[in-house]
Amino acid sequence: MNEGIDTRTVAEIGEFALIDALRDALPAAVRQSVSVTDGIGDDAAIWTPQPGSVSVITTDTLVEGVHFRLDWTDWRSLGFKSLAVNLSDIAAMGAVPRLATVSLGLRGDERVDDLGEMYAGMGELAGAHAVVVAGGDIVRSPDRLMISVTAIGDVPAARVLRRSGAKPGDLVCVSGTLGASAAGLAILADAERFAGLATTGLLTAAHLRPNPRIALGKVLADAGATAAMDLSDGLLGDLPKILHASGVGATIDARLLPVAPALRALFPDRWLDLALRGGEDYELLFTVSPQAMTRLNERANEIGATVTAIGTITDRVDADAGIALVDLDGQARPVDPGAYDHFHVAGAR
Amino acid sequence: MNEGIDTRTVAEIGEFALIDALRDALPAAVRQSVSVTDGIGDDAAIWTPQPGSVSVITTDTLVEGVHFRLDWTDWRSLGFKSLAVNLSDIAAMGAVPRLATVSLGLRGDERVDDLGEMYAGMGELAGAHAVVVAGGDIVRSPDRLMISVTAIGDVPAARVLRRSGAKPGDLVCVSGTLGASAAGLAILADAERFAGLATTGLLTAAHLRPNPRIALGKVLADAGATAAMDLSDGLLGDLPKILHASGVGATIDARLLPVAPALRALFPDRWLDLALRGGEDYELLFTVSPQAMTRLNERANEIGATVTAIGTITDRVDADAGIALVDLDGQARPVDPGAYDHFHVAGAR
Repeated sequence: MNEGIDTRTVAEIGEFALIDALRDALPAAVRQSVSVTDGIGDDAAIWTPQPGSVSVITTDTLVEGVHFRLDWTDWRSLGFKSLAVNLSDIAAMGAVPRLATVSLGLRGDERVDDLGEMYAGMGELAGAHAVVVAGGDIVRSPDRLMISVTAIGDVPAARVLRRSGAKPGDLVCVSGTLGASAAGLAILADAERFAGLATTGLLTAAHLRPNPRIALGKVLADAGATAAMDLSDGLLGDLPKILHASGVGATIDARLLPVAPALRALFPDRWLDLALRGGEDYELLFTVSPQAMTRLNERANEIGATVTAIGTITDRVDADAGIALVDLDGQARPVDPGAYDHFHVAGAR
Repeated sequence: MNEGIDTRTVAEIGEFALIDALRDALPAAVRQSVSVTDGIGDDAAIWTPQPGSVSVITTDTLVEGVHFRLDWTDWRSLGFKSLAVNLSDIAAMGAVPRLATVSLGLRGDERVDDLGEMYAGMGELAGAHAVVVAGGDIVRSPDRLMISVTAIGDVPAARVLRRSGAKPGDLVCVSGTLGASAAGLAILADAERFAGLATTGLLTAAHLRPNPRIALGKVLADAGATAAMDLSDGLLGDLPKILHASGVGATIDARLLPVAPALRALFPDRWLDLALRGGEDYELLFTVSPQAMTRLNERANEIGATVTAIGTITDRVDADAGIALVDLDGQARPVDPGAYDHFHVAGAR
């Protein structure tokens, strides 16, 4: 499929030729590695976990029209992102990803070339982290393209990062910047308004090709972060999950939130809301004692990662989300938890 | 959710209450087991693989209207089957299943009670095999219900069953009977015609609640079967995969095929076609040397499993599927491979 453009569809070439084409679209190192996995073509993938470590497994599904639109994303980015959101979950446990399987739901009218591009995007990210893509399942999905990825990683048992270890006095920190992905989505949804603005590329890239923070996850595990998760549902959506699991509260200072200059410039009225509630940043949200923070910061700097303290863990303050927000004017006030519910209908509870 | 009938829908209770309800629908032993997994509520499930063994992973997706119809299945059977098809892949590698994750794609108008029943069916099978159901992902799927399960198992490295080890002279064997699931599907699709016939229940059950041959898979691994896979696409669809992977051919004797009496009785004109090409039996297809067959048979008898030799492995005879079929009249003739292609359009190749 590297020789010119192949315009055939899945229905035209059939399932078995498609499997071959998708396999060919992956870099060889990503397809197979004797030490980690073999048996592609068997009923299941095989691998030998690292002795002395535990394995972590996660699964995430992207559905056309719900999680992506084919007129807003290119196929390569779609493949990249479908693996990235899973590797991000692995990173949030402090683990190193090893293996991924892919279930594809296809209508049949997809172009094989496009699916090959999608796999090439998956392969690009897999190759960068020595993750093996070990086959999976292809089914017919009459209405919508669906990509379900399962990823597995290893971590020394004593260093697994959980959501449940945050303690009063710990710092609340995030990696990278907040709100960029949601801003990128808003830009894609209103392309005319933002046409010709040079600074949009950083934000749309954050939405279309999020970079899972794998190296940083390992740094957090090594440096003794007390709790961690990845940000998929926005800061105010995800932080309550750590607070609930740990039985604590938190104070967050809006003035400390790391926000990209392009986000402030393009969304002067909405940037704070995007930073607090925007989803899909796939940055790491974690807590760490002030004593361990210095060393963690040094290690993060060494790998080129940015971490920012945005607040502190407190005793649990109430039965709700337990977040107090210090606003831009310096005034503290409680906030509603902002967890994104895929099914919630207003007023139905 | 065990207190009377709860008619609320997913959209009415929201994602987080749904996750709680589904967790409650699983037996406690299946939900969590400290020695195998923990961290439910974290980004990924954690478990410690058996030392000295390799892990196998498989993933299979069921899509409404493609793999099941809600007017033909009850919810409990749907849950049972969605896990069963995955455990069957694990069994076909000779492995013992340990852990499963579930991705659900929901429209939102599903009744929570029905989804609870589905999870109870999953839990029934998981509990029977000490498999832990360790969470997963719930997404919105606007058109169709979708259930994607990933299962992981362990097997001693030296005993992994693959598709690639069949040798000329080996016996070709199957477990159970062939064609029952496809016959059950035909009965469900034409309920009027078969109404009131007592013998249909065995066949519809084979379709709705296939039993993964986990204990037998372990017996095959221990007894030195040379190749194995599970039958999802029919004998003539799946056998070519073993022949191709092993570089051999096969002769199959139609007179030896194990077929349920009810299948012969209800489908006098079609039973052989159903046995040869009917899908979703989830029986094991395997090859074994004649020397090892005696002991394998004894071990199979001990666990109450039936295995039947239906032919022999031969030198590869041609570039195609390489199957010669001895028909009911005793005449040998080559057959077309019958692999089921989810996307193939006749004449498009």
